[in-house]
Parts: sequence; structure tokens; C-alpha cells
Amino acid sequence: MTDALHAHLDRTRDDAIERARALLAIPSVSTDPAYAEHVSAAAQWCAEHLRGSGLDAEVLPTDGHPIVHATTRPEQLANPEAPRVLFYGHYDVQPPDPEEQWTHPPFTPTVRDGNLYARGASDDKGQVMSFLEALRAYHEIGEKLPGPVSVLLEGEEECGSVNLPAALERYRDRFAADVVLISDTSMWDQHTCAITYALRGLLYFDIQLHGPSRDLHSGLYGGTIANPATILTQVLGRLFDRDHRVTVPGFYDDVQPITHEERAAWARLEFDEARYLQAIGVERAFGETGYTTLERRWARPACDVNGLYGGYQGAGAKTVIPSFAGAKVSFRLAADQDPEKIAPAFRDWLESQDTRGLTWRITEHGRAAPVAVPTDSPWIQAAARACEQAVGRAPVLMREGATIPVVAEFKRVLGLESILLGFGLAGDNIHSPDEHIALDRLELARRTHARVLRELAAVTT
Amino acid sequence: MTDALHAHLDRTRDDAIERARALLAIPSVSTDPAYAEHVSAAAQWCAEHLRGSGLDAEVLPTDGHPIVHATTRPEQLANPEAPRVLFYGHYDVQPPDPEEQWTHPPFTPTVRDGNLYARGASDDKGQVMSFLEALRAYHEIGEKLPGPVSVLLEGEEECGSVNLPAALERYRDRFAADVVLISDTSMWDQHTCAITYALRGLLYFDIQLHGPSRDLHSGLYGGTIANPATILTQVLGRLFDRDHRVTVPGFYDDVQPITHEERAAWARLEFDEARYLQAIGVERAFGETGYTTLERRWARPACDVNGLYGGYQGAGAKTVIPSFAGAKVSFRLAADQDPEKIAPAFRDWLESQDTRGLTWRITEHGRAAPVAVPTDSPWIQAAARACEQAVGRAPVLMREGATIPVVAEFKRVLGLESILLGFGLAGDNIHSPDEHIALDRLELARRTHARVLRELAAVTT
Repeated sequence: MTDALHAHLDRTRDDAIERARALLAIPSVSTDPAYAEHVSAAAQWCAEHLRGSGLDAEVLPTDGHPIVHATTRPEQLANPEAPRVLFYGHYDVQPPDPEEQWTHPPFTPTVRDGNLYARGASDDKGQVMSFLEALRAYHEIGEKLPGPVSVLLEGEEECGSVNLPAALERYRDRFAADVVLISDTSMWDQHTCAITYALRGLLYFDIQLHGPSRDLHSGLYGGTIANPATILTQVLGRLFDRDHRVTVPGFYDDVQPITHEERAAWARLEFDEARYLQAIGVERAFGETGYTTLERRWARPACDVNGLYGGYQGAGAKTVIPSFAGAKVSFRLAADQDPEKIAPAFRDWLESQDTRGLTWRITEHGRAAPVAVPTDSPWIQAAARACEQAVGRAPVLMREGATIPVVAEFKRVLGLESILLGFGLAGDNIHSPDEHIALDRLELARRTHARVLRELAAVTT
Repeated sequence: MTDALHAHLDRTRDDAIERARALLAIPSVSTDPAYAEHVSAAAQWCAEHLRGSGLDAEVLPTDGHPIVHATTRPEQLANPEAPRVLFYGHYDVQPPDPEEQWTHPPFTPTVRDGNLYARGASDDKGQVMSFLEALRAYHEIGEKLPGPVSVLLEGEEECGSVNLPAALERYRDRFAADVVLISDTSMWDQHTCAITYALRGLLYFDIQLHGPSRDLHSGLYGGTIANPATILTQVLGRLFDRDHRVTVPGFYDDVQPITHEERAAWARLEFDEARYLQAIGVERAFGETGYTTLERRWARPACDVNGLYGGYQGAGAKTVIPSFAGAKVSFRLAADQDPEKIAPAFRDWLESQDTRGLTWRITEHGRAAPVAVPTDSPWIQAAARACEQAVGRAPVLMREGATIPVVAEFKRVLGLESILLGFGLAGDNIHSPDEHIALDRLELARRTHARVLRELAAVTT
């Protein structure tokens, strides 16, 4: 980073915060149609901000909320031949309710004790603004950007990104790039950057076992016919072996083994398991035999029963044999498990179970592939160098157990790998009242992004 | 039966039906406080009817709806030293809703095509009236009753008989008798009487497994902690072995083996299993290995999951690890299983399961002991003779899979065995719209009861 850029960043810290507050004041709640105008206004605001930094910006229609798209102009680039970075973020936010639990109104951004409070402060408007403000700083002092940049800001991340895959296909040419940069994840701690290089995928099923044509009296029929609720528990009881490994044939075939290097690196992180469990009121860790909690969360697949239903669920007693019973069952897939293989394998497994004549009704709700980028990828290495320059220590290279479906979509549609460099923290209250981000972290993010642009532009592929 | 009594029964058939209609017209819905006055009115009506037959009748208060109690006077008895019969029935009825599905208003008793339609026509006012009208017939022609009779009519059977056990204790002296006669069960078919000599008991549990202090994100936590819904299915999956036998230790210890005689007798009934299954939309029978459907229903214990709940149960997907999950689990106990032994055995079994650190919350909703009377009991034999005289063929001696808790209470509090001689049929729509009973069956019941009184009075114990 040049001394001039450095000095300018110092000078404009408060300006950047003010502009972030302006975006945060727009209640762009994507899931509630009542906010639709505000969602559009937020998209326009972002496009305008990007134009103010010298980029060509447009608001692209989708079947839902629009996408903001912007690209640098050749004349603002030091090296137009450098790799093109596609920055992805989202300008929509979660609903603010329960609004009465907020200390300050959720769309009246408020600074208190060094934190900026507002819905979206951390997820994801604050993080988006840290990148946009890095672009702005280059522009304001007339310094050329190291390489070409595209920006893609989505307005439907908080309601499932349902129109994004189609938009990626439709505007595929506009989004051509060399790598994707995403700021929508977390730091390791407040002093340590983190680059997330792997995410788990997701498969979600609603499985129902159907039996008699109506609920039956359990005194008159009990013991003579298969009870769907009973048999469902028996089938699900066979879904795991004694080591809590999923018994679906082939389930683990494509799981990337954890490397010695990863294992050693994660052990050095000194993950505080006691604190992790205490925060959720759980006494002891439990999972697949032979792995630590961090390994289970980051690198091993998981299967969870997310819900159970059927028969009588009210207070007291009702003696029925339910006509059906159901469960929500989901899988978190680890790289390189393929949802296109695991989904039919699970269906086959269900169909192969002896259900005593009862029949399945199976519905699928979502498939997302896991992603894992080699940590020696030049992109990861470049981003890591930028982090180290910005905070004076190497970032943690981590995985995450959750799923960000868009990452797999960038890979599938555009063939692009994503760098997940985020600045949130677990305590930011995202999706909850009093969402906030530390002003210092916002600034750290802006400075890191200014350096990331330089490092990524220098990558030779 | 004397010729005079016979002739009088012939003559008074329509009068008896008219009086049954009068009782059926009173909407004595016990579960809904809005009907309380009508419940009282029905009790008074019954007491008045019994007085009209020469008995001393009173309406006894309880903590809920009253009990009608009546006894014969010594001067109306042929043999005051004969065994005393305590007739039990209930004058309350199920709610009529959905009322719009009735062809005739539920409390406007209507005769159509040889059937009497009204709420309570079969369950149980119609059956109660068939006994009360047998008493009436003796009185009207001045014929002495063969032996002493007490009548106990309850007003809370359809809302759980919650105050009956205390009333049995409180009025124990009034209810002293030699045997109980109950008309609240079914015939084998429209031409064949049935005496039910065994009922299953009931144990009902709500079991919940509790884990994390709140619902968790299954991406962030999946695979690292015990999921209550998953572990619950694993525990329930171990509740049965391959032969669908309950794995709770000692569960079958006290079950009466089915005798060779019973087995042979039931085989001769030519139970139509295909029809039984077809009526409920089930393809094949399923239950404990080594028993027929009738044996499983009548003489073997059963365990059913009556309900499952926990986590996300709505449409679509929500990726949570629920903080708890629960199941309603009930047992139908076969004679001579003891609920006081089975209940703690099931709790011990639950506590012995490896729940991976999750904790149980167990609630019990009801205990009722199974009952079984030897078929060579002189009471059963006497009732069987009366049936054979009335319809010209021997009754079927059957068991029932359901539970009538009051039968165990008569045994426990008063030390009395019950004769279950009922005149309902599966097609009577009890608890449903258009409840009815065939007028011919009502008359058959009245005549049979007139004979039962004579046969029971002749029993020497």
C-alpha cells in the first residue's frame, strides 16, 4: 500500500463510517414484501456509491430483488491484464423482529462504546461497505486500482438466494472473472483474520412413513399392525452405527481425509471446547468416533434429525396409532461428497429398510455441494499475505461447518473458486436484536481489502 | 322367563323405545361445562325411571357429575338371599360435533330403517335403557325379580371417569354386591352375543429428551453434539427386538399364556383378517412373532408410539438441532401384567439407555390394570346361558384389546369381577356423527337382560 493511500485511509475513517450508516439506515428486509421499495432503494444506493468510485454500475433485474453489478473501467487500472476479482456480498438484511428487544432502533444506526449497532452492521452491509470503501479510497486519491474488479451485490441472500443461480447463468458474461472474493464469514478472534477455505454442503429431506387410512384407536388395533411412528423411529435408529457414523452405503467414500498438516494446524489453534459447549448448555461433545470437535465440525459430514412429527403432540394423552409420521433429516456434506450421489443413496437406503408394509413419501428441500479450496491455492496465499500485512500476524486458515450455497454456484456456473475473507465475530448478534460490529473491525476490513486488491492483482495463474 | 313376562315384553316394545328416546333427547355431554344442567337432568331422569320400577333411587354427588344409585327393595325379590348384581353403565355422552354432519339432529332421537339415531343410542344410554327396561318389565306385571340388584350409573365415563374411583371408595357400602354387570361393549356380529372376559390395561408416557439450551444451527453445530431428536429415535429404535417384542426387561414375565382351549376357540371364530385390514387401509398385519392378529389384539401386550414431536415441523426446511424432542409412548398390558411393575421397569429402561449426555423428562398419563376373568367363572357361564336362551346360540367368549379402567377399579376397590355383556357393533358410529343402534338389537338386549337377571340369581358361590 502506498503511503498516500495509507494516509488517506487514516483521514477518511469517519467518512467511511458515515456512508456505512447511510446504507444501514435503509431497511432492506428481503423476505417481507412490505419492504420491497426499501430493498430497491438499497440496491440503487450501492450502485450510486460504486459510480462515485469510478466504476460502471447497473442494477440488474431478476425474478425477485435486483442484483447490483459494477465493473472498473480500464483507465482506472494499473494493470488491466491482472486477474479480475469478482466481489460478492449482499445488501439485504434479516427482519429486525423482535424489534422491541433492540436497545436502539434497528434502522437508526448508532455508535456506542466503539461499536456500530444496526441490522446488517455485520451481516453483511458493514462487510460489503468495507470493500466498497477500499475501492473508494483508491479513487479519491487518484491512485490506480491494481487490477480489474467486478462487484456483484445480491438482494436475496437472507431469503435463500433463490434467483441467484438463474441470474449467474443469465448474466454469465458480465460476471466473468478469475476469482471470487466474499466477505460474509468470521474472523478467528478479534485480533486474528481468518480465511475460510472449506464449507460443508447440504441435503435436506422431509421423510414420511404412511400407514393406515386414518388415525386408529391404539387399544383396538395396537399390536396388530405396523405403527408409522414406531417404525419411523426404528428406521432412523438404524441410520447411525455405534461410532455415530452414517450407515448409508458409500456415504463416506468421497470424504476428503483430513491431512496431517490440517490436523496439526487445527490442534495449534487451541480451540476452547469447554467454552463452546458451555455457551449452548451442553455437557459433553458427541459425534463420529475418532475426531475432535473442530474436525467433526469443519471436515466431517454430519446428519441431523431437524424435526419429528406425527400423531398426538398435545398435552396429556391420546391413544392413537397415527396414520403417518414424519421427520426432517438433513446432511451436512464434507468435501468431496457429491449431493448428486448422496441424495439417491439415502433414498435407496430408506427404500431398502423393512418398513413392515408402510410406504414412504419423500420430499427434498435443497441440495448444495460442499466446497474446499486447497490452502496452497495462489488466491488463498495472496489473501493471507494481505491479512498478515494488515494486522501483523498470519490469518487462521479455517473451515466452516455451515453452508454458503452461492460458493458452489460460482464454481458450478462460472467455474470460479471463492476466497472467504470475513470480518464478523460470533458475538455480533447477526439475525438477532442489537446486531453490531466493532468500528475497529470495520476499519481493519477496509484496510485489509485495500491490500487484498493489490495481492490478488499480483497473482499469476 | 315366565310366559307372562315374555308376553309383556312383546307388548311393551314400543313403550320401551319411547322411554329410551326420552333419555336420548337430554344432551348430557359431560366434557363440556355448558351442558352441566342437562347432565344433571339426565341423572334425575334415570333415578325417576328406576323409582318407577320399584327401586329406591338416589342421585349421589361427586366432585364432578353425579352418580345415580338405585337398589331393589326386599319385597320385590323372589329370593333376597340370591347374589346381588351391581349393574354399571353411564348416562353421559360424547359431544355431538361435528353436528352439521348428522342426518338428524343428535338430540332429536329419530327412527329410520329400523335404527334409532341419536348421540348415545349405542354408547351407552341405549344399552343402559335395555337393562333398566328389563327391570321395568318385571315390575309392570308384578313379577318378583329373581334376586337383588343395584344400579350405578356414572356421568363422567366420556371424560375419563376421574371421580369414580373416589366415589367407589366413599360409597363402598352402598355398592356392595357379588358381581358387576356392564353393557358397554360389542356383540360378535348382529346375530351373535359376546361376553368380553378380558381387557388390556394401559400405561401412557410422555418422554422428552433435553439437550442444548436453545435450538442450534445445524451447520455450525452438526456432528459435534448429541441431537435430542436423533438420539430419541435411537432409543425408541431399541424398544423392540426383531420379533417386535418389547425389550424392557421383565416385560412379558406376568403375561398369561394363551391356553390351548382359547387358541382353538378363537381359531373357530374364523376372524376375517382381510376385512379387518381393508377397513383401515392396511395391506398386511404386523406384530409380535408367533401370534395371530386376534391373539395379538386380545391376549398379547402392545406398545405404540402415539405421537412424535420436536424441532421443525412446518413446510419446507429449517436447519436446526432441536433443544429437545419428545414422544408419547403407551403400553396395552395383557393380563396379568402389573402396571405398578411395568411403569418403573420402563422408566429404568429409559434411564439405562446411553443418551449421550442428554437428559429425560418423563411424565405419566394414566395407569390401568388389565383384567381377565376365567371363562369357567360361574358368572360368565350364567350370562352365557342367558344369551343362548335369548338368541338360540352360544355367545362368543371374547377378549378386547382396549381398556375399560372402571373394570379394574371394581376389582381393586370392591373386589368384584365384571361381566361385560354388550350389544354394540363396530358400525354403530359411536363417538361419530349418526350414532345409532338397531331397534332389534335394543330389544334383544332387553330380553337378554331379563334372562341374565334370572341366571345370575341362580348362581351359587
